[in-house]
Amino acid sequence: MYFEYSDKVKGLQEKLNNFMDKYVYPNEKLYEEQLQSNDRFAVVPPIMEELKQKAKEEGLWNLFLPQSEHGAGLTNLEYAPLCEIMGRSSIAPEVFNCAAPDTGNMETIVRYGTEEHKEKWLKPLLDGEIRSCFSMTEPDVASSDATNIQASIVRDGDEYVINGTKWWSSGAGDPRCKIAIVMGKNDPTAPKHKQQSMILVPLDTPGVKVKRLLPVFGYDHAPHGHAEIEYKDVRVPASNMLLGEGRGFEIAQGRLGPGRIHHCMRTIGAAERALELLCKRVQERETFGKKLAEQGVIQEWIADARINIEQARLLTLKAAYMMDTVGNKEAKAEIAMIKVVAPNMALEILDKAIQAFGAAGVTEDFPLASSWVKIRTLRLADGPDEVHRRAIARQELKKYQ
Amino acid sequence: MYFEYSDKVKGLQEKLNNFMDKYVYPNEKLYEEQLQSNDRFAVVPPIMEELKQKAKEEGLWNLFLPQSEHGAGLTNLEYAPLCEIMGRSSIAPEVFNCAAPDTGNMETIVRYGTEEHKEKWLKPLLDGEIRSCFSMTEPDVASSDATNIQASIVRDGDEYVINGTKWWSSGAGDPRCKIAIVMGKNDPTAPKHKQQSMILVPLDTPGVKVKRLLPVFGYDHAPHGHAEIEYKDVRVPASNMLLGEGRGFEIAQGRLGPGRIHHCMRTIGAAERALELLCKRVQERETFGKKLAEQGVIQEWIADARINIEQARLLTLKAAYMMDTVGNKEAKAEIAMIKVVAPNMALEILDKAIQAFGAAGVTEDFPLASSWVKIRTLRLADGPDEVHRRAIARQELKKYQ
Amino acid sequence: MYFEYSDKVKGLQEKLNNFMDKYVYPNEKLYEEQLQSNDRFAVVPPIMEELKQKAKEEGLWNLFLPQSEHGAGLTNLEYAPLCEIMGRSSIAPEVFNCAAPDTGNMETIVRYGTEEHKEKWLKPLLDGEIRSCFSMTEPDVASSDATNIQASIVRDGDEYVINGTKWWSSGAGDPRCKIAIVMGKNDPTAPKHKQQSMILVPLDTPGVKVKRLLPVFGYDHAPHGHAEIEYKDVRVPASNMLLGEGRGFEIAQGRLGPGRIHHCMRTIGAAERALELLCKRVQERETFGKKLAEQGVIQEWIADARINIEQARLLTLKAAYMMDTVGNKEAKAEIAMIKVVAPNMALEILDKAIQAFGAAGVTEDFPLASSWVKIRTLRLADGPDEVHRRAIARQELKKYQ
Amino acid sequence: MYFEYSDKVKGLQEKLNNFMDKYVYPNEKLYEEQLQSNDRFAVVPPIMEELKQKAKEEGLWNLFLPQSEHGAGLTNLEYAPLCEIMGRSSIAPEVFNCAAPDTGNMETIVRYGTEEHKEKWLKPLLDGEIRSCFSMTEPDVASSDATNIQASIVRDGDEYVINGTKWWSSGAGDPRCKIAIVMGKNDPTAPKHKQQSMILVPLDTPGVKVKRLLPVFGYDHAPHGHAEIEYKDVRVPASNMLLGEGRGFEIAQGRLGPGRIHHCMRTIGAAERALELLCKRVQERETFGKKLAEQGVIQEWIADARINIEQARLLTLKAAYMMDTVGNKEAKAEIAMIKVVAPNMALEILDKAIQAFGAAGVTEDFPLASSWVKIRTLRLADGPDEVHRRAIARQELKKYQ
Repeated sequence: MYFEYSDKVKGLQEKLNNFMDKYVYPNEKLYEEQLQSNDRFAVVPPIMEELKQKAKEEGLWNLFLPQSEHGAGLTNLEYAPLCEIMGRSSIAPEVFNCAAPDTGNMETIVRYGTEEHKEKWLKPLLDGEIRSCFSMTEPDVASSDATNIQASIVRDGDEYVINGTKWWSSGAGDPRCKIAIVMGKNDPTAPKHKQQSMILVPLDTPGVKVKRLLPVFGYDHAPHGHAEIEYKDVRVPASNMLLGEGRGFEIAQGRLGPGRIHHCMRTIGAAERALELLCKRVQERETFGKKLAEQGVIQEWIADARINIEQARLLTLKAAYMMDTVGNKEAKAEIAMIKVVAPNMALEILDKAIQAFGAAGVTEDFPLASSWVKIRTLRLADGPDEVHRRAIARQELKKYQ
Repeated sequence: MYFEYSDKVKGLQEKLNNFMDKYVYPNEKLYEEQLQSNDRFAVVPPIMEELKQKAKEEGLWNLFLPQSEHGAGLTNLEYAPLCEIMGRSSIAPEVFNCAAPDTGNMETIVRYGTEEHKEKWLKPLLDGEIRSCFSMTEPDVASSDATNIQASIVRDGDEYVINGTKWWSSGAGDPRCKIAIVMGKNDPTAPKHKQQSMILVPLDTPGVKVKRLLPVFGYDHAPHGHAEIEYKDVRVPASNMLLGEGRGFEIAQGRLGPGRIHHCMRTIGAAERALELLCKRVQERETFGKKLAEQGVIQEWIADARINIEQARLLTLKAAYMMDTVGNKEAKAEIAMIKVVAPNMALEILDKAIQAFGAAGVTEDFPLASSWVKIRTLRLADGPDEVHRRAIARQELKKYQ
Repeated sequence: MYFEYSDKVKGLQEKLNNFMDKYVYPNEKLYEEQLQSNDRFAVVPPIMEELKQKAKEEGLWNLFLPQSEHGAGLTNLEYAPLCEIMGRSSIAPEVFNCAAPDTGNMETIVRYGTEEHKEKWLKPLLDGEIRSCFSMTEPDVASSDATNIQASIVRDGDEYVINGTKWWSSGAGDPRCKIAIVMGKNDPTAPKHKQQSMILVPLDTPGVKVKRLLPVFGYDHAPHGHAEIEYKDVRVPASNMLLGEGRGFEIAQGRLGPGRIHHCMRTIGAAERALELLCKRVQERETFGKKLAEQGVIQEWIADARINIEQARLLTLKAAYMMDTVGNKEAKAEIAMIKVVAPNMALEILDKAIQAFGAAGVTEDFPLASSWVKIRTLRLADGPDEVHRRAIARQELKKYQ
Repeated sequence: MYFEYSDKVKGLQEKLNNFMDKYVYPNEKLYEEQLQSNDRFAVVPPIMEELKQKAKEEGLWNLFLPQSEHGAGLTNLEYAPLCEIMGRSSIAPEVFNCAAPDTGNMETIVRYGTEEHKEKWLKPLLDGEIRSCFSMTEPDVASSDATNIQASIVRDGDEYVINGTKWWSSGAGDPRCKIAIVMGKNDPTAPKHKQQSMILVPLDTPGVKVKRLLPVFGYDHAPHGHAEIEYKDVRVPASNMLLGEGRGFEIAQGRLGPGRIHHCMRTIGAAERALELLCKRVQERETFGKKLAEQGVIQEWIADARINIEQARLLTLKAAYMMDTVGNKEAKAEIAMIKVVAPNMALEILDKAIQAFGAAGVTEDFPLASSWVKIRTLRLADGPDEVHRRAIARQELKKYQ
């Protein structure tokens, strides 16, 4: 047991924090302003491309990717505290080319893609030139049980034909989004976990139609956006299939571990920022003759916030450690645990912070309400809390069967 | 003790429910669509004025107002279950001219206004021709302690001059909004609870400037809107003063009781609707081979929802009963209690409903996310939970001093 | 809707409160002392019989029994607030001959017993001369699902032969306990809810053996006691059968409603007393330079306690009202709700009170720890919370099937 | 960051677990039986001395003591997982001479005692020949603020004279208990944190009187016991003073860190055992046609239990790591955090386990109720949760002052 970050990590933390202080935090408002002044889904705020350029120059780029050939070669345990820092600002992950769902998609192509896939899609993604989306969830079935997924991917000669309606294809609103990874059934008669496949679908393929961009608690999340996409007789070359027919679950499993842990680390960063904002605010405002910071109830909020952040971070780091040492599959209980813990922890802290900020807390003057909303969706994305708790319990019960 | 609504109330409940079924629920989507197709703050969706006309014709109008001269003459206890029904749809309160903040403003003018105030402002408000706002909260101080309010209302000859910046002047975004009740200090040297006054300020008075409309968790709440208003050397006739200088707290006290209880009853209605939606949804969807409705965890949500709604409703009705029998002041502990209970109860149910709906729950396809956001603000509006809990505790402790 | 107790009830409340102040509270410690000085299960503290005599003289006797022939003829709604007062002291219910399980057993005999049963068992129970127990729960099966009950009641000529092991036959430790109502299967081949019967078994029948008295979180609850009883070839006259073979569930249903509501009302009384003790204590003690009563966290506890007591009481009264007006069966959802609400509410308040009392709170110097333990068992007795929540949910879901 | 125990620790864990399996668990019932058959405070169950002898022989003795001269020389981080194992059984800590308050007292004498103190008291404590108590808490003041402590320790020639009443001098019921460390004021005029001293008082000194042994939720915790002790003109040699007059707080600080972390680790062990019992039980029992283990609600309990144990353990290990690396003082926030987290976490799990066990859970047939009670007191001992939360919050707020 050893509870210090390595020198390598500490160095990167410092570098990243400096970058955040110098370039990211000061430009959060500008990003929002640039977004307001355009068709929100047509143009990306120019400041984003400037910041990306700067990050690339400083070598703070693609830190998420464990494979050293393509990325920074950091382990999950090394990347986790860096990812946390990026989570402090809603614009930061993209700045460092570490934003979902691109990270998961890049990792998927690295692991399961062919050389052609890599050349065509991975390279521009790694370069931050294009973006991508992941089309799995469907409006018509409870997708938390992935065996319910109904879209079809049918072989027809040298092509696959895709039909189905997906939603929560997040990122498809962005004009730079060029490629989707689509999950669907290719063989409904196969064993339950062998029916699904994943396939690469360029968004400009005929038959792909973004029907609408879904609001999230009132936010549009432009230019990213959460798309409902209709795939109607969409034809792609057979070579676009990832790994092979019926191997969708296998890919999902490999993909989800890192994706979840990234979300959790970012969430911890968001919680830290909320706590920081809360601590500062309550030392500025007074009610009933004393600073809010002196109110016992608020002190209790702060103490519980600190306690819960510490615990969630340690558990997330342990999950990262296990992914690195015994693999994503063996670490699945730990991954499920942090998937439950981190968002709930952060939502609670954000809720208290909003409460302490009063009416200001629900506006965009502070990044509390928007952060709350994003993290609220994480209790649903990649499986709702309830499905993860069920998986954890079943694994625990097995020890005594 | 008697736990049945009176026949009069039952009759009104039936009438109101029929109206909701026939006219309100079926037009919720239309209202949203009409809103989307315009400058969201420039034009009111035409369906609203149609529905208002229908409600007026059916005598379902101004039910909130206890004074029989101007309104339906219902007691708080009689109005409560009707208000609950209106709370089931976000567009309903306005349909029946029972929407905040107009209700509170009308009640304030009825109680504390002069004949001139009534003729000029109350009448068109009662007729649903104009709307109003309430300008109390300020961005620069913790307004949960109302003695912190800093705006100034200074006598100058036959006029009062108002200076200050207010926000959360909700409703000021609406093109029909014509009048504000503004709270401010007229004598900073008076005893703490005698420093504040309330005054009527027409929104077209020179010096009144809506600086911006505040978003609430991403929603703009058009055309209503939550305004930040600058009052700069705004001059109104001295006769616009309500009740007299230094009597702002007195008015606030009289105003807040009914306002709070209305919010609570509407909140209970929103909770009932969420539970209904939840119960229906979980009987439609399946995961892991069984209906969501058969999952024990979801049954627990439903049971707790039912339990907590029942309790909150009874407590709210008792508070209404006490307001009617011993007065708003004597009922202040009960009012504070429901102010804490109702929003927290409803938020919990809405959160579970969203969780059960999965990704659909955070969109506008169902009224869950929007309802959550509105009710979240009620934990801040009219005093945050913490201030009410403090008041309840102090009153409890006094019993043993 | 009407939220006042009737004059009749108010009169009884006053009389009961006076009795409590004059005789019950001042003798709580004496009762404990008399208990310490004897074999705790051999002799009943003499003060108890004195107090019972006094209560009888004042007409505060058998208030629980709705039937006017045998009891006070109060409705559930009238009895509820009186039962609450009795719940403030652990010795009070017996003083007024309103203690479980005698109340449930008396009510069972009144409703389902023959004249012979009434003469032989009801009369001395009503007179407070003997006590009784209820033998349903079994150690070897999950008795929360009553269809699991395994004891057998087999007809053999003019007798029934009973075999099985029961536990939590509470009250069987008392030397005055003479009669048990035993539940068991008489026909394992009948439809699931027709297999069980209830039968009267005098405790001095050969084959009845109290194997041990079970501790409850360290308490022995002498002289009452919670017995594990072995019934081995126990023979009783066939006429001891209640209502008829296979009607055990029917009796259970009739019996449980009142029993549960009594527990809930007593629990509310216990919560009120805990809150009173808490409020007094925190005004006496200081930490960090101020009274505990001025600590915001403790004020929050007090506010939540007051809110939750009010809500639980109203829901319990409504359940009582429904039992009186539409019957126990129609009121089953409400009964289940209060069964969940009341103990959890009271435990929370007791926990906070213990916390505020510090180490004193876990001792017998104050009635907090003992009250907590008794109420903790109510989350299991008569069905665990989880079974009641399940029933509430299923009833709610049915509305939309 | 490194999340594995060292080989040394793994070896000790295995050894300890084997010892537990072979000697401790199988003798828990025997210990209770031997206790029942005697005056509970007069004789120690003989099995205890047998087990201690065995533990000594196997070198599993005094593992808690970091100083290698007297103990096993383990760091806090190394000892923590071993202490956790001991926490699984209520009799285990004493078996390995690692029971409170002896551990804290021994550590205090090692750090702050003279050679004479060590020879006279430390040696027999280390040998497991005598036991000890700690006399700090007082019945008449809120001792959670230690500056409230009122007992006096006054120099008179070569002696100190001690007067005051203490309670929760735990362990003083044991016939082997020979020595107390008493805290009291020697100079009420000194600065607030320099008024208190700690002094060694042999329990056979004239004027020391055990007035009563306090019950804890009905348990007597024989033979250990929680004593209320009157110190009346108790005279001890001046050389019994620890460290010097006015240095009581300094000692308290040094003492409390390890004491708290031991409690927390034991608590985690108790939580693990409760979860194990729960998982086994729910796979044995059925309700409503399926195993309890298949009920979603129970699966949720299990998942949350696993999550919360993992988090609490990691935070406790980190606190231990910090105590080892930066010292108890620098680690005080982390120590406060685990002091809050561990008992609350374990109580929740125990409560669920009790609920799943049904009525059996509140008896002594399983170690759930007794474990709950012991851990409940930890939310008060060494400072209530509220005081620790306050300390954590103040430290957090300081970061932004």
